[in-house]
Amino acid sequence: MALTGELFIGRRRLSTAQRFQAVDPTRGETLETAFSAAGTAELEAACTLAHTAFDPYRNLPPLRRADFLEAIARHILALGDALLERAHRETALPLARLTGERARTVGQLQLFAAELRAGEWLGLRVDPALPQRTPAPRPDLRLRKIPCGPVAVFGASNFPLAFSVAGGDSAAALAAGCPIVVKGHPAHPGTSEWVAQAIAAAAAETDMPDGVFSLLHGPDTALGAALVADARIRAVAFTGSRAGGLALMKIAAARPEPIPVYAEMSSINPVVLLPAALAARSESLAREFVASLTLGVGQFCTNPGLVLALEGDGLQRFIEAAGAALAAVSPAVMLTEGIQRNYIRGVERLWTGGAELLAQGSAGTNNCARAALFSVTAASLAERPELAEETFGPASLLVRCRTLRELSETLERLEGQLTATVQMDPADLPLAQELLPTLEHKAGRIIVNSWPTGVEVCHAMVHGGPFPATSDGRSTSVGTLAIERFLRPVCYQGFADGLLPQELRAGELQRWPHRFDGERRLGRTE
Amino acid sequence: MALTGELFIGRRRLSTAQRFQAVDPTRGETLETAFSAAGTAELEAACTLAHTAFDPYRNLPPLRRADFLEAIARHILALGDALLERAHRETALPLARLTGERARTVGQLQLFAAELRAGEWLGLRVDPALPQRTPAPRPDLRLRKIPCGPVAVFGASNFPLAFSVAGGDSAAALAAGCPIVVKGHPAHPGTSEWVAQAIAAAAAETDMPDGVFSLLHGPDTALGAALVADARIRAVAFTGSRAGGLALMKIAAARPEPIPVYAEMSSINPVVLLPAALAARSESLAREFVASLTLGVGQFCTNPGLVLALEGDGLQRFIEAAGAALAAVSPAVMLTEGIQRNYIRGVERLWTGGAELLAQGSAGTNNCARAALFSVTAASLAERPELAEETFGPASLLVRCRTLRELSETLERLEGQLTATVQMDPADLPLAQELLPTLEHKAGRIIVNSWPTGVEVCHAMVHGGPFPATSDGRSTSVGTLAIERFLRPVCYQGFADGLLPQELRAGELQRWPHRFDGERRLGRTE
Repeated sequence: MALTGELFIGRRRLSTAQRFQAVDPTRGETLETAFSAAGTAELEAACTLAHTAFDPYRNLPPLRRADFLEAIARHILALGDALLERAHRETALPLARLTGERARTVGQLQLFAAELRAGEWLGLRVDPALPQRTPAPRPDLRLRKIPCGPVAVFGASNFPLAFSVAGGDSAAALAAGCPIVVKGHPAHPGTSEWVAQAIAAAAAETDMPDGVFSLLHGPDTALGAALVADARIRAVAFTGSRAGGLALMKIAAARPEPIPVYAEMSSINPVVLLPAALAARSESLAREFVASLTLGVGQFCTNPGLVLALEGDGLQRFIEAAGAALAAVSPAVMLTEGIQRNYIRGVERLWTGGAELLAQGSAGTNNCARAALFSVTAASLAERPELAEETFGPASLLVRCRTLRELSETLERLEGQLTATVQMDPADLPLAQELLPTLEHKAGRIIVNSWPTGVEVCHAMVHGGPFPATSDGRSTSVGTLAIERFLRPVCYQGFADGLLPQELRAGELQRWPHRFDGERRLGRTE
Repeated sequence: MALTGELFIGRRRLSTAQRFQAVDPTRGETLETAFSAAGTAELEAACTLAHTAFDPYRNLPPLRRADFLEAIARHILALGDALLERAHRETALPLARLTGERARTVGQLQLFAAELRAGEWLGLRVDPALPQRTPAPRPDLRLRKIPCGPVAVFGASNFPLAFSVAGGDSAAALAAGCPIVVKGHPAHPGTSEWVAQAIAAAAAETDMPDGVFSLLHGPDTALGAALVADARIRAVAFTGSRAGGLALMKIAAARPEPIPVYAEMSSINPVVLLPAALAARSESLAREFVASLTLGVGQFCTNPGLVLALEGDGLQRFIEAAGAALAAVSPAVMLTEGIQRNYIRGVERLWTGGAELLAQGSAGTNNCARAALFSVTAASLAERPELAEETFGPASLLVRCRTLRELSETLERLEGQLTATVQMDPADLPLAQELLPTLEHKAGRIIVNSWPTGVEVCHAMVHGGPFPATSDGRSTSVGTLAIERFLRPVCYQGFADGLLPQELRAGELQRWPHRFDGERRLGRTE
């Protein structure tokens, strides 16, 4: 198989006259294959097909959709090294990282397949008729969740597999029963096409309706804007910059029928170092912190961009050890030239904003990011809150606090976050307990004695958080709860068994977890 | 006890210089008691108290909040007939209806208390640590849902008890752990004050934090706008007009931190009369339809404002019987003069828009609404879709369709709805099956062989639906699922047992329904 540069419009492949090429960020060279950019006609065709596919796709037995997801996983693995090599050339991410990311991507698809079989997502509830009730009888009432409709998925630059064409958003939407129209990230169109081939092959193998999947490319923002504005699109999933997410929220809210936007946008992921932990293990904390900060060239949504600690000897030792660890960090190439430019701008903003530079990694060449640790007092940060804006990349700001109260107030003034981390020893428990309510206000995930980078894909994960970490703090974009974003409840009142949806019929209900008259019942294990 | 006209700012009672009085819609006379309107200072005080109360209130054991809700229910009942009489004078709703509505209001509070004890709302999930897993161990991950923060609740004119100060939105928000700041509806301030006294008494009796409840009055829209814009408010619950809901959505989206708005706004609740049902029972369908249309002077969100049927003898008999039933309907007083004015305008719009008047109720005097049934062909409606806009009151539009396809296409062109109803006999099953996907796209609740008015408060109810029926089609404002609107998930990673929230600790987890490594487990019955 070779890359063709074509768009995937349901089962069709199309070329257009407008082309663009990927750039190898390491060498600054354009890569082979010219990719077609989608115009109005291609967008229209993809959305029409997605709309047409919606009812047939959502009305398939859930187990059929599980088969589809697992087939996608198999076909991605079957792409072999070609996929990883192209992804490496397009993103400069190391092959080992990409191998891990592929495993995560495949694992996500399999987890959603298992979740479809478990049936929790159906949210079934039955309140049986009470014909004898006075003053009025109760009709039979049954609830299930149904998918919201076609979903626009935006590929993210920093996870070319796990948050791109067949990534977490796609897996959740397809599991829910929503056709997807993916807007590929222009930095890795070849990776996107390989994965699209895997999805297309899986759709053919499992006989999915035409239009359940389309992939559109567009090198600028016009295509994404038009996609979100299209009346057939019923929800949006996006991981990217704050400006990008806010723009999509605005378009979605201004539609004649507004739709939900799930944008994961901006987070500096505060880390609190409590005194007993600092006293006992400042050096190891410093090394672990620098490893987390510089992992993947700091290009994680959960990168620890802010550290808060109380002044003292422990903090001084932490700073020295972090400086030494940072000095040993080699510069590395960022995902794109634009990201690197923004990183340099962010570091300059910290510098000119009055933060003190504590330590730096070694300097690099072309597209390389130099890791950096700055510091500021809590009092200064209170005066210049813009210093706490996200700098995407391996830079972090240490906030020196005189008292726990000052630390707590600094946290309270922060915007919403994906994560908040506490490094603590048993003696820090009272302080951690005091901070916990504030951490709960601010973050979707609270981490003790670990680091925010590394997001487990499981049932209890929340990769979300109050605005502006995400556009919708009620949601997560990682883990099985992510399927909820694309579902809505429907109540069926007074239905004869033969008209009810399959899952709610007398013969099938027992198979699924449900609430009967409010009482929780387990599904029958197959 | 007597009405004082004061505002409730947490535990404080305040008067202001700006006053307004309620109007008896039957007589057009102002009622006794001048009510204080809240200004900036009162709003500020209420929001500050709600913010301060948030952590203490949400961190109470859930069973304490259940006690509070039940105490509110008791104190409402203890108000006795004074409450119903004032509500009757302020709304012109009959005492029998208000007695029923009080029972529903009390029942809602008790249902949410039971739901708090059942614990489903906590959404607990535990993925235990896998320290031996390769290539990387899994940390312990635990999820619970926490309340979003103080909620602004808007009293609705048409349910002075069940969707006002201690109505469904208040019960759901208080159950979730959110303090509420209620903006009372200016048409029934006395009813609001009585209920506020009950809530205040219950809060004192069960020792709730100061600020868990405030009631503000304001005769115009400025107060509500300022409330939604206040940074301490984290969600909005509203039932009312489309213009009102859209205005609140706009304010909420334009905040520095946007917040969710749950506005229940506009629905014409299509009813489909299928041929076999029409053939077998057109007369009884007509009588039931007219009863549903004119119930409560048509002032229900689920009023059947659109009827769709295939041309034929059955439909002709339905029209004749509906005409006869309508002619026997006495005019009745609407909730307010403004609502009646809008009703007359809506009926005129149908008239001048080219709909044919089929039948009318008898004419009334002052503030009375005259019930009306219009008809239009599906083809004409396709050309003039504005005829399908909501007319709040006892008016309905019959759409004559030549084919099932025309009927289905008419449904598909409608906006989102709270409900969609199908009247069918067994022979209609194939037609109903064909329509079902469209009905699912359009409505939050689908009803067979009953009528949309009458909303059961239970676990399987959905009183919601796609925009513009509500601002957020993922939600319901009636039934236990309504609590979800005010919750967000938080993940606790690597927590020592002593730092975990109570419900997630080893000793207490088994008591609540939860998922353990994805597997559903029942809570322990107490």
